[in-house]
Amino acid sequence: MTHLATRSLSDLFADRTRVFGTSIWTDILRHKEKHADPAYFGDGAPARELLPIDRLRDASARAWEDSAGLLGYGDQKGYAPLREWIANHLRTRDIETHANNVLVTGGSTQALDFACRVFLQPGDAVIVENPTFLGALEILNTYQVEIIGVDCDDHGLDVDKLQQALIANPQVKVIYTIPTFQNPSGTNLPLDRRQRLVDLAREHHVAVFEDDPYGDLQYSGEVIAPIRALDDQVLYFGTFSKTLAPGIRVGFVVATDEVMEKLLSTREVSDISNDRIMMRTVALALEDDFLPGHIQECRDFYRIRRDAMLAALEREMPEGIKWSKPDGGFFVWITLPAHIDSDRMFDVAAEYGVVFFPGEWFDPDREVSHTIRLSFSTVSVDRIDLGIARLGEAIRSIL
Amino acid sequence: MTHLATRSLSDLFADRTRVFGTSIWTDILRHKEKHADPAYFGDGAPARELLPIDRLRDASARAWEDSAGLLGYGDQKGYAPLREWIANHLRTRDIETHANNVLVTGGSTQALDFACRVFLQPGDAVIVENPTFLGALEILNTYQVEIIGVDCDDHGLDVDKLQQALIANPQVKVIYTIPTFQNPSGTNLPLDRRQRLVDLAREHHVAVFEDDPYGDLQYSGEVIAPIRALDDQVLYFGTFSKTLAPGIRVGFVVATDEVMEKLLSTREVSDISNDRIMMRTVALALEDDFLPGHIQECRDFYRIRRDAMLAALEREMPEGIKWSKPDGGFFVWITLPAHIDSDRMFDVAAEYGVVFFPGEWFDPDREVSHTIRLSFSTVSVDRIDLGIARLGEAIRSIL
Repeated sequence: MTHLATRSLSDLFADRTRVFGTSIWTDILRHKEKHADPAYFGDGAPARELLPIDRLRDASARAWEDSAGLLGYGDQKGYAPLREWIANHLRTRDIETHANNVLVTGGSTQALDFACRVFLQPGDAVIVENPTFLGALEILNTYQVEIIGVDCDDHGLDVDKLQQALIANPQVKVIYTIPTFQNPSGTNLPLDRRQRLVDLAREHHVAVFEDDPYGDLQYSGEVIAPIRALDDQVLYFGTFSKTLAPGIRVGFVVATDEVMEKLLSTREVSDISNDRIMMRTVALALEDDFLPGHIQECRDFYRIRRDAMLAALEREMPEGIKWSKPDGGFFVWITLPAHIDSDRMFDVAAEYGVVFFPGEWFDPDREVSHTIRLSFSTVSVDRIDLGIARLGEAIRSIL
Repeated sequence: MTHLATRSLSDLFADRTRVFGTSIWTDILRHKEKHADPAYFGDGAPARELLPIDRLRDASARAWEDSAGLLGYGDQKGYAPLREWIANHLRTRDIETHANNVLVTGGSTQALDFACRVFLQPGDAVIVENPTFLGALEILNTYQVEIIGVDCDDHGLDVDKLQQALIANPQVKVIYTIPTFQNPSGTNLPLDRRQRLVDLAREHHVAVFEDDPYGDLQYSGEVIAPIRALDDQVLYFGTFSKTLAPGIRVGFVVATDEVMEKLLSTREVSDISNDRIMMRTVALALEDDFLPGHIQECRDFYRIRRDAMLAALEREMPEGIKWSKPDGGFFVWITLPAHIDSDRMFDVAAEYGVVFFPGEWFDPDREVSHTIRLSFSTVSVDRIDLGIARLGEAIRSIL
């Protein structure tokens, strides 16, 4: 038989692969290349200066001692002392749970993906905040579900509109929310809205997925407990990507026994477990109450950058531009005048040497937007000043 | 609103969760508990004595040096030097590929799961060897596809029956095969059958998933190149779980550019990447041509155990019992007389103090079987002698 060198298997691909488009990173790279030294406000990652590398390295050396028992296939829930640490830490945020209700995952990305595998199938619908984390939109899209965006205001999700959406869409199975220092808007959902959200979820019998990567990183304002503290049926996703490091791929999901059973079966048919040495490394790095002090250091560090960005915006933005004043997290959300589209702003700003994520990337329907997301986590105060000045110029050039 | 303590979300679970049953580990544990000191032939893991812990530990210490660049979100394909090592190593097995066509995964389990996400949806069918790896059956089942088992003989997959199955089932999209030292049967598919398999796959335009966890662990007989060496359209799954350690969760998939693009998008919506420190650890551990010598050590070690098991079977098995004589891998496949069902054998043997996997677990339809799988990888020669003697007694008790 002749070897068919031009044979393609692409017609065999599953329908779920149709949602995969060009990566946003291609677009980001192309925009960065428009300037010799662009100021980049696109990162969702922590500042490199804050990564506790020495602590992790020392913990890793200890994790390898007497490690033979960790090198087999092991426990799918993850390293027990780490799960116990997580359960204890969550108590400081008013979440009552047990180590057996914690599954360690490859970042909170995998936590969300596993939860989707347990709950979602074609024909279902999911409610998200509009705008919301674009990584979550990408995951949800592969489950071939309808994604219904509910508008937000300066305080986060509009719960009256949430109620309307639940009434209008009985096929909704899940509400996905980032109530605390939301990505991208930076809002912190007030307690009364959190309570209303869980009440509505109960009333309409839908699951709630609470994604909380930034909850520990609060710089000002009132502390509000996660939604999971109000209702133990909420699936809660956490991560060490923002407080320790993204590259270690350690996050977790908290769930009830009945959901955990399905999450564990899902784990068994996906990748069995996290790297077991790294789970022990993280558990050892967290010993002796390391995290609270480290979190305080992070807060002090990021507060300075947030304040610098807010001051620079105050100084540089022309009239008619609005922005959020986040009490935590990594992001400031800019609203441009209605005649400036964010994709045009993205192009023009790149010419001026400033790159960020246009707002339409966070819209489930990718509609034309007039918003942009600026991240301050990885940018020095000097570069913030420079970048925001450039952004001001860029805006004025098309105002 | 009243808090409904008894609320359940189970009616919201996706249909794919219906396939999750009781874990086989519950059954294994229950059978182990029937005897004070059972001989256990159930492991698919490598011998603990062979884990190169010192080498990995030293490599880990080096991986943490200058590690700041590895602690961000990073490259989804995985650590480039590790992908280059894999591409080079595969050349020794007659596979021509490039580092860009290698994706590092959380074991070969995740490689198979990602490949299923790219290709499979409800309504599709997959052909597997009957018997085949039960972990693969569990993964395939969650994709809600029809699983068609094709019979094997002493040399592996019957390719005439494969052709019949392809003709009879045009909805087949994928052939999943473990041609080399198959799990559970231990067979090594001859070259002419491998060629026939890829010819049939081309003719019927189906994808081939080649799972090759044991290919490096050959103890005797003719060396036969992987199916991927015959056709670069074959998706090839490999792992370090059998040669380094399972707990590090490092495997890989080799695929063409068009498939790799979809695998990478799948990675982005599942867990972004492997733990980056561990990928560098493995790459450093593999430097200076470590693996060939280590593999030789593994071969010599497992050959002794295989020979001990075959000799013990020769000595202890009553007439009417047949078994495979594997040239590699971890498993011997026993065929009992037709009046002894493997589930009954499983129960009786446990009383005599020997525990293994009954053959029906490897049958896609879980039909009554008369076969059992014995693993010798983690059992010392003394314990092999003891366990096989017990198995002989147990069989004679119900013959």
